Amino acid sequence: MTPLVFNLDSDPDLGSRLCRALGAEAGELEQRHFPDGESYLRVHSTVHNRDCVIFCNLFQPDRRILRLLFLADTLRELGATRIGLITPYLPYMRQDKRFHAGECVSSRPFARLLSNAFDLLVTVDPHLHRYHSLDEIYSLKSQVVPAAPMIARWISEHIERPLLIGPDSESEQWVSQVAKLANAPWQILSKQRHGDYQVEVSLPRLERWQQHTPVLVDDIISSGRTMLETLDHLQSAGLPRACVIAVHGLFAGDAWQRLSAIADVISCESVPHPSNRISLSAPLAAAMGALLAADPSP
Amino acid sequence: MTPLVFNLDSDPDLGSRLCRALGAEAGELEQRHFPDGESYLRVHSTVHNRDCVIFCNLFQPDRRILRLLFLADTLRELGATRIGLITPYLPYMRQDKRFHAGECVSSRPFARLLSNAFDLLVTVDPHLHRYHSLDEIYSLKSQVVPAAPMIARWISEHIERPLLIGPDSESEQWVSQVAKLANAPWQILSKQRHGDYQVEVSLPRLERWQQHTPVLVDDIISSGRTMLETLDHLQSAGLPRACVIAVHGLFAGDAWQRLSAIADVISCESVPHPSNRISLSAPLAAAMGALLAADPSP
Repeated sequence: MTPLVFNLDSDPDLGSRLCRALGAEAGELEQRHFPDGESYLRVHSTVHNRDCVIFCNLFQPDRRILRLLFLADTLRELGATRIGLITPYLPYMRQDKRFHAGECVSSRPFARLLSNAFDLLVTVDPHLHRYHSLDEIYSLKSQVVPAAPMIARWISEHIERPLLIGPDSESEQWVSQVAKLANAPWQILSKQRHGDYQVEVSLPRLERWQQHTPVLVDDIISSGRTMLETLDHLQSAGLPRACVIAVHGLFAGDAWQRLSAIADVISCESVPHPSNRISLSAPLAAAMGALLAADPSP
Repeated sequence: MTPLVFNLDSDPDLGSRLCRALGAEAGELEQRHFPDGESYLRVHSTVHNRDCVIFCNLFQPDRRILRLLFLADTLRELGATRIGLITPYLPYMRQDKRFHAGECVSSRPFARLLSNAFDLLVTVDPHLHRYHSLDEIYSLKSQVVPAAPMIARWISEHIERPLLIGPDSESEQWVSQVAKLANAPWQILSKQRHGDYQVEVSLPRLERWQQHTPVLVDDIISSGRTMLETLDHLQSAGLPRACVIAVHGLFAGDAWQRLSAIADVISCESVPHPSNRISLSAPLAAAMGALLAADPSP
């Protein structure tokens, strides 16, 4: 039977493209808040014996998580066969180690919450640094969509002589992958972080790239400090105006204003933002389709 | 060993009185938000082999729940013996039935989340209407603090000839209890709810109570519509200015302004609010102390 896709508080346009690409039916959901702020949810579609997919974009996850868990639980109670989650951005992946005694390694309890609620998970380039795979902390079936092919295609189509630049060693693995796919040269810089907003970046010699457009690529842009520091250095080195590309453009605080003042800023449509240029609907739907097909429902 | 009490985003004054009354040590907690809004938590106290109690007041629960679960999980990982929760207000108890097909019966998934995270729970007068006990949905050890004795004492001390009034049949059981403890007469009204903000109240004959101060008591005041409707009728019947007492004064929207314009509004300190007059620290601490003593840690 055709699966259902429920859009929970997320981009309606991406939601309906996901639904079409999956050949699914749009699930009907009613939600409101009680006067005291508690959430009310009601599923109007018939979900019994059907696969259900929730599209919920989990940026700013603290204020979304409870309703998401409530919806998954309700679908389960109403007899859904399997329950999948599509979240282009998977939060809390960066706290992947107890850096200091007593810290919450939030990636782990967050993974348990989602794993208890869902059978299937599709996301785009989760921040896998110390974990090698989602399976280390998630106990559900997951599929990761790599943004590199879409980013590489965008670069090939829009930038004449790109020089790809990764802001730190964590980005090397997949900046090099984008560069290879775009058939472009690349450089990795070294970064020292002194706090949430304090970042120092060191650059290799850049003289030989003066005829190239620097293309800075990172998985997550949050405060934007790493990018801003890097852009400063590129300007000093006399390189042309840079292009900044994020898979997940969170753009906290004034990051967007400051970055777009000195560079062309582009993002995948992982987090809804005016900078969204790179579509993710096709690979997200394909990944969820593959998970649903791998172990078909009765 | 002395238990630790951690105050998570809750009233610091009530928190320290709880800590003193429990003979506990104040747990040291560091928290902030990353620039993208995700939560950072760090426990500075040594919790290994110690009982830990989190005081987290769960009104407006959606924006508090994730940090609460993260903290409980962190204490567990750090080796806490048992983890208790003191929340004067226990949310999501009113959605205790699937009133319409497809509705989320949120009391159940919410109970599961807390039951997975905690060993012990203390709360004040949870809204037990269709459930007879928290044990029907909570699988942890819980103790319920009744507010009736504290409310009855406050009435005895402050109101000369009180007539206790319960706004609907759900309130009868414990309005009658308050009345008996305060040695005062009582009346229960009948209520018809037509929506979150639309309520109709019917009153018995009130002429014989013209020399009494009406004291309206309810467990939860949210939109305040039930109380406002009732106060209108009491005014029409020529009764003196009423006193309104809530165990949990949520006072959504303009409820507080509208109620306090026509009545003296009093609440237990369950939800921090200017109307708080009735202290809960002693019975809350006693209840948690009893749970901790019942099955002492090694």
